[in-house]
Amino acid sequence: MTRNRLEAFSDGVIAIIITIMVLELRPPAGSSWHELGALTPKFLAYVLSYIYLGIYWNNHHHLLHTVERIDGAIMWANLHLLFWLSVVPFTTAWMGTHPRAPEPAALYGFSLLMAAIAYTILVRAIIAEQLHFSGGRHSKLRDLIGGDVKGIVSIAIYVTGGALAFVTPWLAYALFAAVAVIWLVPDRRISRRLDDGKS
Amino acid sequence: MTRNRLEAFSDGVIAIIITIMVLELRPPAGSSWHELGALTPKFLAYVLSYIYLGIYWNNHHHLLHTVERIDGAIMWANLHLLFWLSVVPFTTAWMGTHPRAPEPAALYGFSLLMAAIAYTILVRAIIAEQLHFSGGRHSKLRDLIGGDVKGIVSIAIYVTGGALAFVTPWLAYALFAAVAVIWLVPDRRISRRLDDGKS
Amino acid sequence: MTRNRLEAFSDGVIAIIITIMVLELRPPAGSSWHELGALTPKFLAYVLSYIYLGIYWNNHHHLLHTVERIDGAIMWANLHLLFWLSVVPFTTAWMGTHPRAPEPAALYGFSLLMAAIAYTILVRAIIAEQLHFSGGRHSKLRDLIGGDVKGIVSIAIYVTGGALAFVTPWLAYALFAAVAVIWLVPDRRISRRLDDGKS
Amino acid sequence: MTRNRLEAFSDGVIAIIITIMVLELRPPAGSSWHELGALTPKFLAYVLSYIYLGIYWNNHHHLLHTVERIDGAIMWANLHLLFWLSVVPFTTAWMGTHPRAPEPAALYGFSLLMAAIAYTILVRAIIAEQLHFSGGRHSKLRDLIGGDVKGIVSIAIYVTGGALAFVTPWLAYALFAAVAVIWLVPDRRISRRLDDGKS
Repeated sequence: MTRNRLEAFSDGVIAIIITIMVLELRPPAGSSWHELGALTPKFLAYVLSYIYLGIYWNNHHHLLHTVERIDGAIMWANLHLLFWLSVVPFTTAWMGTHPRAPEPAALYGFSLLMAAIAYTILVRAIIAEQLHFSGGRHSKLRDLIGGDVKGIVSIAIYVTGGALAFVTPWLAYALFAAVAVIWLVPDRRISRRLDDGKS
Repeated sequence: MTRNRLEAFSDGVIAIIITIMVLELRPPAGSSWHELGALTPKFLAYVLSYIYLGIYWNNHHHLLHTVERIDGAIMWANLHLLFWLSVVPFTTAWMGTHPRAPEPAALYGFSLLMAAIAYTILVRAIIAEQLHFSGGRHSKLRDLIGGDVKGIVSIAIYVTGGALAFVTPWLAYALFAAVAVIWLVPDRRISRRLDDGKS
Repeated sequence: MTRNRLEAFSDGVIAIIITIMVLELRPPAGSSWHELGALTPKFLAYVLSYIYLGIYWNNHHHLLHTVERIDGAIMWANLHLLFWLSVVPFTTAWMGTHPRAPEPAALYGFSLLMAAIAYTILVRAIIAEQLHFSGGRHSKLRDLIGGDVKGIVSIAIYVTGGALAFVTPWLAYALFAAVAVIWLVPDRRISRRLDDGKS
Repeated sequence: MTRNRLEAFSDGVIAIIITIMVLELRPPAGSSWHELGALTPKFLAYVLSYIYLGIYWNNHHHLLHTVERIDGAIMWANLHLLFWLSVVPFTTAWMGTHPRAPEPAALYGFSLLMAAIAYTILVRAIIAEQLHFSGGRHSKLRDLIGGDVKGIVSIAIYVTGGALAFVTPWLAYALFAAVAVIWLVPDRRISRRLDDGKS
């Protein structure tokens, strides 16, 4: 029951973040295609962040499926993750307004980085709880997630992208989009093995 | 359980979209009926989009009732549908602000079109999963939905409406309203046969 | 299950309405008590609408407890009610900005009136479904709600208040506050008899 | 079931409050670090309020776990608490915009104070219901919460902080942050004894 409430609360927050982000897309003052076209960078920034939040929602879902008990550390690690996700509409809006400037691209990468770190902390908190409960013998999630190559690669790319934004922001955008593609595939490690476990 | 979470998340997003849309209805600066009356096009645009979102919520509900397992394709097809629904407040606001201009009416039709296509993709993803799981023999949803005449007609009308907006936007509005009327009746095909299945 | 989803969706919409309403309370430009004090009418309007929405949430809760099956009429009657509730932040903001003008007070009364009528329609839709299902013999809700004196009185007061706003808006405010007080007590008719039914 | 709906509704409202608060963080007009840096006070105010709302969500969760029946008093005490929490984005935004002024800091403390009082009232309403139901013999929550030292200390600090804001707002900020630290630890009294009860 406690897990359900954590799940429901997280879903609620992610649903709101994903939806209010589009509030930044204010319709243009005029009614021409030309004026609408000026919103293209903002729209693309919105699309990218929407995909990222969809990925987080999806993986968060798989993650919590391995959890049986929630302790204080997991609860706060989860709120910490939601905090950085809640910052994404802000960094998205800044990046969308100044697509040619390096600073907003770097800040966007920073918000993704912090969310990725927060996700890693949440994974650790869950593993710690599972080990604690089983007297150090077993963690379902640790078995499933293995070395977490994808997580480490993502963090490296966010840092690289943020730095390369000062060469040209387009490099940063390419890298951020690449990470989204990497993650678009749901975490097969977890889902496959969960399926195996069932059969 | 997984289906419930998908349902709850979708409901959350639709509930937020339907509600934040009204935030575009900013009260007028003055306090006279005259100034309030200037908001009429915006209000009518809001009413139309509210009905559309209600229809999507309703049919989405019927749709998911036929689903037993969620795979990655269904999850992303669903997020894709929610994406285009989340764009509706934006296109509604633009159309409501410029009721006599063709471009906003055409864009509104475009957002409805994309939502309709996304809905069709979701239907396909569910059918594919059901066929896959049953070894290609059976899909509950495919049996229920049949040729999906209503869906195809809607898509045709959105395209027509978007094009006719450049003759006069009022034609587009009439067509968009007509689609809403067509769909206001919940998908009896599904609900009736589900009832049959129960009895 | 279907009832639960209707309940959850309605709760979501009401939770969002109740919360975004406060977004209209923009902090003043300066930092003095004087500037803050200028927001008093807006704050009081917010308090009143918050109470109204709390009442609707509460009674809606009691109402749906008597429902066992949801048909299309109930679903749309419910969406119709949520529509008028979603308009309340708009009318609240207009009234809060122009506390001395009659038009915003009258419009606020109109939005309450429409919500009350929508609530009555929802009650009728539920009773009709219950009678239909039982072959016209029995409706749990009709037995509980009786003559619905409170609902009829409220509608009469909204109309009166809206009209008296043109004498002075303060009369309207007094009447709208009076209705809130009448309803603050949850619908004891329903809750008491439900309790009786259990014992 | 009734408790679940109260829980779900409260979670929804808190999730929305926590998320819309960040909407106050509007991206700066320019794209420089300098302009971004000007938002630091607003960001820190947001962080503090986010933590507070996380604490309330967390403790609210523990609180409702002791509840078995919801009466009207509990429902309205809960809505009263949510009301003051919904005011927090407003006071946060004012404080974040004027970090050197005493009035916004004092008002922020006032909103925290009212939320704390509302929480205490909710605790009392739950205890009263439990005593009433057991014929005055037993209240699970009263046994768990004991003297509620932390609650009383918090209220005292909010009042002190609000007053000291007029010496310098930084004292107020230090005190408000201190209360957050005190509460960051979930209410071990309740959770521990609940655990004991299970074993």
